[in-house]
Amino acid sequence: MEQYKIVLDLLGSDKGPETVLLGASLAFKEFPNLSITLVGPKEVVISKKEELGLDMSRIKIIEANETISNYENPYTGIMNKPNASLVLAMKEVGQEEENYIGMISPGNTGAILMGSFRFLSDENKTRPCISALLPNAKGAFTCLVDAGATIDCTSGQLHSFAHLGSDLMRKMYKIEKPRVGLLSNGAEPTKGNHLVKETYPILEEDKELNFIGNIEGNKALSGDCDVLVCDGFAGNQVLKNTEGVAKLFITDIVKLSKKKNKPEYMEVANYLMKAYDLGALGGGILLGTRKIIMKARGNSDERAIVNISRMLINYAGGAAVFDNEYRDEAAR
Amino acid sequence: MEQYKIVLDLLGSDKGPETVLLGASLAFKEFPNLSITLVGPKEVVISKKEELGLDMSRIKIIEANETISNYENPYTGIMNKPNASLVLAMKEVGQEEENYIGMISPGNTGAILMGSFRFLSDENKTRPCISALLPNAKGAFTCLVDAGATIDCTSGQLHSFAHLGSDLMRKMYKIEKPRVGLLSNGAEPTKGNHLVKETYPILEEDKELNFIGNIEGNKALSGDCDVLVCDGFAGNQVLKNTEGVAKLFITDIVKLSKKKNKPEYMEVANYLMKAYDLGALGGGILLGTRKIIMKARGNSDERAIVNISRMLINYAGGAAVFDNEYRDEAAR
Repeated sequence: MEQYKIVLDLLGSDKGPETVLLGASLAFKEFPNLSITLVGPKEVVISKKEELGLDMSRIKIIEANETISNYENPYTGIMNKPNASLVLAMKEVGQEEENYIGMISPGNTGAILMGSFRFLSDENKTRPCISALLPNAKGAFTCLVDAGATIDCTSGQLHSFAHLGSDLMRKMYKIEKPRVGLLSNGAEPTKGNHLVKETYPILEEDKELNFIGNIEGNKALSGDCDVLVCDGFAGNQVLKNTEGVAKLFITDIVKLSKKKNKPEYMEVANYLMKAYDLGALGGGILLGTRKIIMKARGNSDERAIVNISRMLINYAGGAAVFDNEYRDEAAR
Repeated sequence: MEQYKIVLDLLGSDKGPETVLLGASLAFKEFPNLSITLVGPKEVVISKKEELGLDMSRIKIIEANETISNYENPYTGIMNKPNASLVLAMKEVGQEEENYIGMISPGNTGAILMGSFRFLSDENKTRPCISALLPNAKGAFTCLVDAGATIDCTSGQLHSFAHLGSDLMRKMYKIEKPRVGLLSNGAEPTKGNHLVKETYPILEEDKELNFIGNIEGNKALSGDCDVLVCDGFAGNQVLKNTEGVAKLFITDIVKLSKKKNKPEYMEVANYLMKAYDLGALGGGILLGTRKIIMKARGNSDERAIVNISRMLINYAGGAAVFDNEYRDEAAR
């Protein structure tokens, strides 16, 4: 059985290191061939060892108590905090002789990006981006790049993201020519902000890409494209707005079920929760780096950690990140 | 009974002038005190007169056959097509002696913006923006400004939008101090793209505004703020993404209902359709102009046209634009 070694940053989740550790313990149970290097406060691991039934032979601990908060400048955080858990995790995963498949961190997104560029950039010094895989109306997934790493982008960066996203979809879903769409405020080539208008002809001229034109926000989840390219600000809006709308609808259905005394409505709420639970997806994959870096959401719970561990292991093995059994019920 | 006179641009909807005219006929039935100046192809009105039961004494027709398409540059469209229906409609509504309450157009958004600035700007030459009223989790509405008029914005424009949105919510919903949020990729004041970071301190320092800080995309519909400020590109994403997610969910529930043979699921789908039907909201209100200009969606059907006529009439009368009886069922 192939052995998988990963690095897990215990710090950075709003829910605290105990929750991240709980996620790790669940991942251990699911993957008997998994070893994890935990970067964070040692005493948390020791104190929870028995309760969580941790097999310490599969664990290495790197002590870290410092974190780069969401209020800090990512660049100065990376430069001035050599003992931050994120920095130590990145240095560890970069040790080629350790043969890690990748790392997971729920920390400051900007700092993960800066750190990846500083410690784990590939030979081309690619600007990394974060991809999010969104469930779409075709029952498949759309790769959103950038989902929030580079907030202000250049057209050259968007061009690079289009390639990184296409590579991901080729590798993971065996899509030979992933359809690339450019997120805009209208389908016509004349629509867009300055950045989109500048990027459109670049994508159009690149014959290595299967560029299909602008995609409007209402088609972001339609499955019309496999890769949806945008700057990190817009991508973050798509990702979080989708999550917000899902939450709003589900909350409404639950209330309606109680108010009208119709327990069967809860089956619909449960379906939506399972089929579109972006929280459970766990986070995004940093593309363009030497090692796989998974960005877990800042509000990651143990479920998110175990899901993102599964994503990392599947991705490393070249398998599709996840099948969505729930969406099969309706969407396909 | 107070008489209302409005101008309606028959051209610009994907569904054709017949559909817009059908919407007008429904508005006539709902508001016996309504007169409409129709700007568009006269022969369409004449040919449909009997079928739709149009009372020609309440109709004035301004002949127009030219339109500014979504593929055209809005500025050159406005400047070079003096006979475009949109241009004629704007000139007509600006005739003070005619005493119109406002106009409705499903045409090119950019051209509406340019035209409003040229023909209908207020004494301060305010940069107009389009507001969209989005149903939120508190059972009320959030005013999104700008919803897609000015795609590339300056911080000064966002500042102005914050005031225009606040004025709207004061007038329509009698909210004394509307809470203003700034759409960003994180709640912290340090988060945002260049524009957001530049705008934050300006909104914070303006004591006439009730600025509550950054709002993330997953809170856009939470009801945490009354006015959500962003550039037109981001606003268009929020608006259209919300619509796209709603459509995806509803479609899934309908499929699930059939597949599992559970007709009661359709009650949930119908509830969501009614409560969150952005299509039915019909469009946005242009703020910062001398006359009220309602931008109907490009895919407006007759229902959207009648709804937006109702919005215009209610707004002119200082009444809340719409109550949402459906959302009462669950959300309040």
